[in-house]
Amino acid sequence: MELLKERILRDASVINNDVLKLDALINHQVDPKLMMEMGNEFARRFAEHEITKVITVESSGIPAAFTTALALGVPLVFARRKKTLIADPDALCERVPSFTKGIVTDIMVSRQFLTPEDKVLFIDDIIANGDAARGLIKIIERSGAKLAGLGIVVEKSFQAGARTIREQGIIVESLVKISSLEGGNITFE
Amino acid sequence: MELLKERILRDASVINNDVLKLDALINHQVDPKLMMEMGNEFARRFAEHEITKVITVESSGIPAAFTTALALGVPLVFARRKKTLIADPDALCERVPSFTKGIVTDIMVSRQFLTPEDKVLFIDDIIANGDAARGLIKIIERSGAKLAGLGIVVEKSFQAGARTIREQGIIVESLVKISSLEGGNITFE
Repeated sequence: MELLKERILRDASVINNDVLKLDALINHQVDPKLMMEMGNEFARRFAEHEITKVITVESSGIPAAFTTALALGVPLVFARRKKTLIADPDALCERVPSFTKGIVTDIMVSRQFLTPEDKVLFIDDIIANGDAARGLIKIIERSGAKLAGLGIVVEKSFQAGARTIREQGIIVESLVKISSLEGGNITFE
Repeated sequence: MELLKERILRDASVINNDVLKLDALINHQVDPKLMMEMGNEFARRFAEHEITKVITVESSGIPAAFTTALALGVPLVFARRKKTLIADPDALCERVPSFTKGIVTDIMVSRQFLTPEDKVLFIDDIIANGDAARGLIKIIERSGAKLAGLGIVVEKSFQAGARTIREQGIIVESLVKISSLEGGNITFE
């Protein structure tokens, strides 16, 4: 997606060889029009999959997942991190490490919103090592729902996340793939 | 907003006299079309305010804030809870208690995305005691940005949050006001 590449080159900053700061356009400030384009693109790529729900993990995946759900005309479900006081007692939970936060969190989805009748598209903003993604994939498997595939805004293809998920036979569609951040330069695949 | 009242009566559940579970339509599962209606309604109510940015606190306020920003044609900024490893060192931070989580969290906004030139509309999903809202209002004041007002999806008017904020002279526009949850019944104002 050329428009997204241009915006990344203009607004993102390379922190080190592993970390790209995208808070000007994805995970702190968001351009709604650009997000609508992304949602339309994901909807186009998964148009033949009869998706019944779009799912993501809170919180920076929510805008892209929302616009995809809007374009597909289906509900959005966002997995919660940590249980709130009013959480469903028989929710599906997985414990996952967070690459950028340096901590472990629990993600959870109520069984009520993910059933064996669902065919879900999992949208996320960034995939690096894929720990949170694997956690949500396990929750989807345990729910009995069918996973149509993953739609990722920015894949850091020099890290193992997306590759190991594709090796499980799961479709991963990324809008942009970054193969290297070495020398402070963003190299697209 | 009649449509929202109908959906609350159909899909929400009263947990006790203080807590309404809205996870079927606001804070776990989301209906994108209903969210678009909400965003359009907030945009209509603040149309004359020359808003430059919509702001919210992650994460369940993001969908309504996103659709409002889209309708107004301005960027969305979502305040982060807790600093990530790559957070801006001179971000604006406030410590706030969370009513539904029973814990204290830090919310933060990078100075880069909130400047004295901004006139911001603060959108949130639910206001109860208003602790998170007051935290973000303090951050907006410290940034030098002007606060046009608050747009709230569900105001629990039997709790003090919205009232105390209005007493500060701040406009609070709620799509739905709930005056009581007593006896397991949802009473709209």
